[in-house]
Amino acid sequence: MDDTLAFAPIAELATLIRRGELSPLELTDLYLERIEQYNPALNAYLAVTSERPRAQARAAEAQIAAGTYLGPLHGIPLAFKDLVDVAGLPTTGGSTLLRDNIAAADATIARRLFAAGAVLLGKTHLVEFAFGGTGVNHHYGTPVNPWDPEIHRLPGGSSSGSGVAVAAGLAPAALGSDTGGSVRIPASFCGLTGLKPTFGLLPNTGVLPLDPTLDSIGPLCRTAQDCALLCQAMADPLPGDSLVDHLEGEVAGLRLCFPREYFWEDVDAEVEAAVRASASVFADLGVYVDEISLEVLDDLVEWRSGPSTTAVEAYLYHRHNLEAHFDQFDPIVSARILDGRDILAADFLGQLRIRDELRCKARTALENVDFLITPTTPFAAPILDEIDRDDVYFPINGLCLRNTIAVNLLDLCAVSLPCGFTREGLPIGLQLIGHPRDEARLLRLARAFEQATDYNLLTPALDAFA
Amino acid sequence: MDDTLAFAPIAELATLIRRGELSPLELTDLYLERIEQYNPALNAYLAVTSERPRAQARAAEAQIAAGTYLGPLHGIPLAFKDLVDVAGLPTTGGSTLLRDNIAAADATIARRLFAAGAVLLGKTHLVEFAFGGTGVNHHYGTPVNPWDPEIHRLPGGSSSGSGVAVAAGLAPAALGSDTGGSVRIPASFCGLTGLKPTFGLLPNTGVLPLDPTLDSIGPLCRTAQDCALLCQAMADPLPGDSLVDHLEGEVAGLRLCFPREYFWEDVDAEVEAAVRASASVFADLGVYVDEISLEVLDDLVEWRSGPSTTAVEAYLYHRHNLEAHFDQFDPIVSARILDGRDILAADFLGQLRIRDELRCKARTALENVDFLITPTTPFAAPILDEIDRDDVYFPINGLCLRNTIAVNLLDLCAVSLPCGFTREGLPIGLQLIGHPRDEARLLRLARAFEQATDYNLLTPALDAFA
Repeated sequence: MDDTLAFAPIAELATLIRRGELSPLELTDLYLERIEQYNPALNAYLAVTSERPRAQARAAEAQIAAGTYLGPLHGIPLAFKDLVDVAGLPTTGGSTLLRDNIAAADATIARRLFAAGAVLLGKTHLVEFAFGGTGVNHHYGTPVNPWDPEIHRLPGGSSSGSGVAVAAGLAPAALGSDTGGSVRIPASFCGLTGLKPTFGLLPNTGVLPLDPTLDSIGPLCRTAQDCALLCQAMADPLPGDSLVDHLEGEVAGLRLCFPREYFWEDVDAEVEAAVRASASVFADLGVYVDEISLEVLDDLVEWRSGPSTTAVEAYLYHRHNLEAHFDQFDPIVSARILDGRDILAADFLGQLRIRDELRCKARTALENVDFLITPTTPFAAPILDEIDRDDVYFPINGLCLRNTIAVNLLDLCAVSLPCGFTREGLPIGLQLIGHPRDEARLLRLARAFEQATDYNLLTPALDAFA
Repeated sequence: MDDTLAFAPIAELATLIRRGELSPLELTDLYLERIEQYNPALNAYLAVTSERPRAQARAAEAQIAAGTYLGPLHGIPLAFKDLVDVAGLPTTGGSTLLRDNIAAADATIARRLFAAGAVLLGKTHLVEFAFGGTGVNHHYGTPVNPWDPEIHRLPGGSSSGSGVAVAAGLAPAALGSDTGGSVRIPASFCGLTGLKPTFGLLPNTGVLPLDPTLDSIGPLCRTAQDCALLCQAMADPLPGDSLVDHLEGEVAGLRLCFPREYFWEDVDAEVEAAVRASASVFADLGVYVDEISLEVLDDLVEWRSGPSTTAVEAYLYHRHNLEAHFDQFDPIVSARILDGRDILAADFLGQLRIRDELRCKARTALENVDFLITPTTPFAAPILDEIDRDDVYFPINGLCLRNTIAVNLLDLCAVSLPCGFTREGLPIGLQLIGHPRDEARLLRLARAFEQATDYNLLTPALDAFA
């Protein structure tokens, strides 16, 4: 089978499957073979159970052959970040403590994807308990960013394995989760399109929590259209038209603003240049491009200097394991969880109340703006050895998350998509930020940019990893 | 004007007003005169601004005379607990610190009542910041329970003045707020019908908070029908039929259960006898009366022995005043607020999560039950001097709240209504507890009991207070 199929978007694969021109089983085998070939070097998948995907693919194939075509995910192989429960498989959360944590039932989103006919290839690596933006995991190893054949560069996290799997053609799309940027950062570092939907659009039942007030499941894909397909299959019934139907609409006249502050500090010159250059692409599409100052971002900086509400959530969830098995935690994770231990209840509650106020303020400030545009991360994928040191890890992690976490904290939605490459050949990510529940127009704008630029269709050379 | 009108339910007054047989201005003057006569001894109202109610009443009268009748609250005088904002009036919250806290706008519920034509007689006393169930207030004095002409007995709290005002015919109905029983306890001690609606049914905007996750505005009235009238006027548009329309339905076949545990410890024999005797009244109405054991109540006892989430909420709200003006707080209130100071965030959040679990458990346990029946308070109104002592105040306060706070914590709704009198002539309160948002059937059942017993129509002798 033609290996270029491994880099085709879901929408293309679905057309071939629907027409009977592509066998779900052969497609699944293509990915399984590639996983066998590349995963030892890339370390994207934690677990691949070859019998299960082949059985699912065979069932899909039989159903389609019998005339029952369930829609664009029928027979499509996918990968799940290993914090999504799948009945009978362990959910490790990237922790050795949960090595034998077999899920009793499918997460709601998994159940919906399986009901739509999707095939599970396997579970992907992540930062332990999803608490970190770089992709580093000291237990299971840090997945390798496929865009650099020579040096081990960060995949981005926490959905590190999902990013690498899709970038390397080991799955057409994968699920991640995004509490502060964990879908968009690997999308940025790996040259993919990653959607963080509005909190609450996709159900978290059966997904290991980091911060239940912020966790958003999101897809990592090759195209904005694929993000729409996956998101729609996982969401509660959407009011009105579907996400997918909205993709075809007009983008001319939309108002896109570059925020003047917050997102640009310590941004690499190459990254800034690529993001700013995208303005002309949007302008050519008829989008009205402007700049804006947002006071709420100053408040956000101050808010982030206060007690971490996410650390409190994580400490509550992990406290018993932390007390009993402290040495089995990744130290870059336990340190952040412990930040939550001594925070006082009134300070925590006060932070939540201020966060609510900032959300109101943000909505008012964005009343006359459709979308914001920013770099997703301040830099392209850093070199692992240069950041995995006590003195720099936490500051670099903070920088990885800064531009993305603003979206989670202000209760917005966002997509990261590639907008160019560095001189070293590393992808550069662009972040488009939308109003709550405005995923339909957000993905429409992302799709228009992709179709005008084709950066999303470029793939890394993988010879060094075979 | 006939003073017996001062004890008529709203529904009767409304009929007379609608027919042009009762003047809203004369009715308002009747209450204002009675307030002048009895309030110095009873201390129900903190503030009465005679010009304002007369102007409102005059406007209502003119509107009705001109043919525009707004409905059953048009021209009806009411009293508000002094934590409900009314533009231009101070909202003291029972605190001397807020003596000059003039409200800029009406609370949403006040605005809705005024839009329905209601007249505000004045603001009523409360326990400082609504944090206490007895009615004691060391700044402004504790309102006097009118059912004992000789000894100063507790009115119940925190909506103490609202209970006394209605019981003594100084208003046909009054608003209270209920975080742990603050509407139902004064209803019990003062012989009134008091509704704690499901949390969220009535908006809290413009109401001074105690615990924003539990605070429920509720009416203190002479009848369940009046509770329905007021609740409906304050609620967001109700789905389907209105509360008032539901009052007339059938009660035969409803399933009413006496919980076996929790509510009966330390209950006075007379109170227990009266509540248990009501079983035959309900049985005669065709209600199916049974007993039930609820494990969730054991969990609730354990939960309540943990950190107080309400103390954390109160500490967050009052911390700055508490630090700057500690000596201006009522010591029975500051002690409880300070309980929230040292609680850790993870413990607080853990308590909230367990509370959510208890709510789920309660709903499952009540699946085959329509209503629970319990004593509202374990005893009738205690004597002020016997409880206002350091060694007994807090235990007695805890007992006052125990049976009612279960309803707030488990996210249910409830009504207290009179079901008899002690040998000393004090009213005994019965609590009916319903499923969330089942106020319509709850009030229907309460109304049927009232119509079968008429305990709610008895009034205290007030000569001693004139």
